[in-house]
Amino acid sequence: MGRTSDAREKIIDAARSLIELRGYSALGVAEICKAAGVPKGSFYYFFESKEVLALAVIDEHWAGQRRDWTRILTGDAEPMQRLRRLFEETAAGQLAGQQSCGTVSGCLFGNLTLELSNQTEAIRTRLQEIFDAQVEMVDSVIAEALDREEVTVADTREAARSVVAQLEGQVLFAKLYNNTHRLGPLWSNCLALLGARPPREATAGI
Amino acid sequence: MGRTSDAREKIIDAARSLIELRGYSALGVAEICKAAGVPKGSFYYFFESKEVLALAVIDEHWAGQRRDWTRILTGDAEPMQRLRRLFEETAAGQLAGQQSCGTVSGCLFGNLTLELSNQTEAIRTRLQEIFDAQVEMVDSVIAEALDREEVTVADTREAARSVVAQLEGQVLFAKLYNNTHRLGPLWSNCLALLGARPPREATAGI
Repeated sequence: MGRTSDAREKIIDAARSLIELRGYSALGVAEICKAAGVPKGSFYYFFESKEVLALAVIDEHWAGQRRDWTRILTGDAEPMQRLRRLFEETAAGQLAGQQSCGTVSGCLFGNLTLELSNQTEAIRTRLQEIFDAQVEMVDSVIAEALDREEVTVADTREAARSVVAQLEGQVLFAKLYNNTHRLGPLWSNCLALLGARPPREATAGI
Repeated sequence: MGRTSDAREKIIDAARSLIELRGYSALGVAEICKAAGVPKGSFYYFFESKEVLALAVIDEHWAGQRRDWTRILTGDAEPMQRLRRLFEETAAGQLAGQQSCGTVSGCLFGNLTLELSNQTEAIRTRLQEIFDAQVEMVDSVIAEALDREEVTVADTREAARSVVAQLEGQVLFAKLYNNTHRLGPLWSNCLALLGARPPREATAGI
């Protein structure tokens, strides 16, 4: 009992929720198993260590987020509208999280970067790969916008990094102030960072 | 022995170093006392809990950083040059930390925001006050630059928040990639976010 793939998913889901609430270091295996409703023996059947579990949580979260980012950033809309949609959906996701658990949980990858990147090289490497992938996806959209002469950047990769950094910074403040309105300026800041033409309509507040 | 103000400072210094290396949650009081070289009884003489110690670490770190920010941001230089100096000194500080302990430690306040702000309201409130103060200091400089028609922002407070968010986001990446070159674009991004005139000289890389 419990040693089914269902138990593995339950452990990952419970760990993700607990990490979002309290970070990684504060968690014990017993607590994760209790929240998952699986016997403690199951844990070590699926995960040889807490670090291996953390990597599984990161991978599963990124699988979902990569699907979302791909849908948004490779859609049919004009490139700048796709970037705008990315910020709007990010804000909507943070708001939904706040409504369901009372606080803005922020970005799981950003949280784990600041908590863990100087402690485990395996987690640091995985998080680097994820942020590299995010930057590459944003870079592609900026390159399209540049071809259309809608933005004026000298280096699309550098510009993409700055857009993702602005996103992480504002999500950090949304978490600290428990207020998703902090994400409102993302779109106008993106336009500024990319030297884009000013938007014709008013900036969307979330 | 140990119950002197010297012991209090030793505990705060040791806790700050350990928090920078491994975060707050992973630390135990015994470990902090061992690193500080003081008997465990001293800890509870000065600090009634680990949370009270964390607040003391935050306050002490902010006292030093506020002095630096005040010196830089209220100096005689032109307003935009003061902002530029802020980024240069931030990058230099992160580089010095990397050279002394091998890794970029990032921003203590950002680290604790992502690790703890959803766990303790006292720490959340203190970190909010610190970031509010940082934003206010940057806001004053932007307002001066606006008076001189060197920037074009509609809301100096909002612009200051975006500049500080960009700083936090880029410091997060400098930590993740253990590379202070990530902080190079801060100045040109600040110019873009503020709708400033382009700099006449090349952008400073650090």
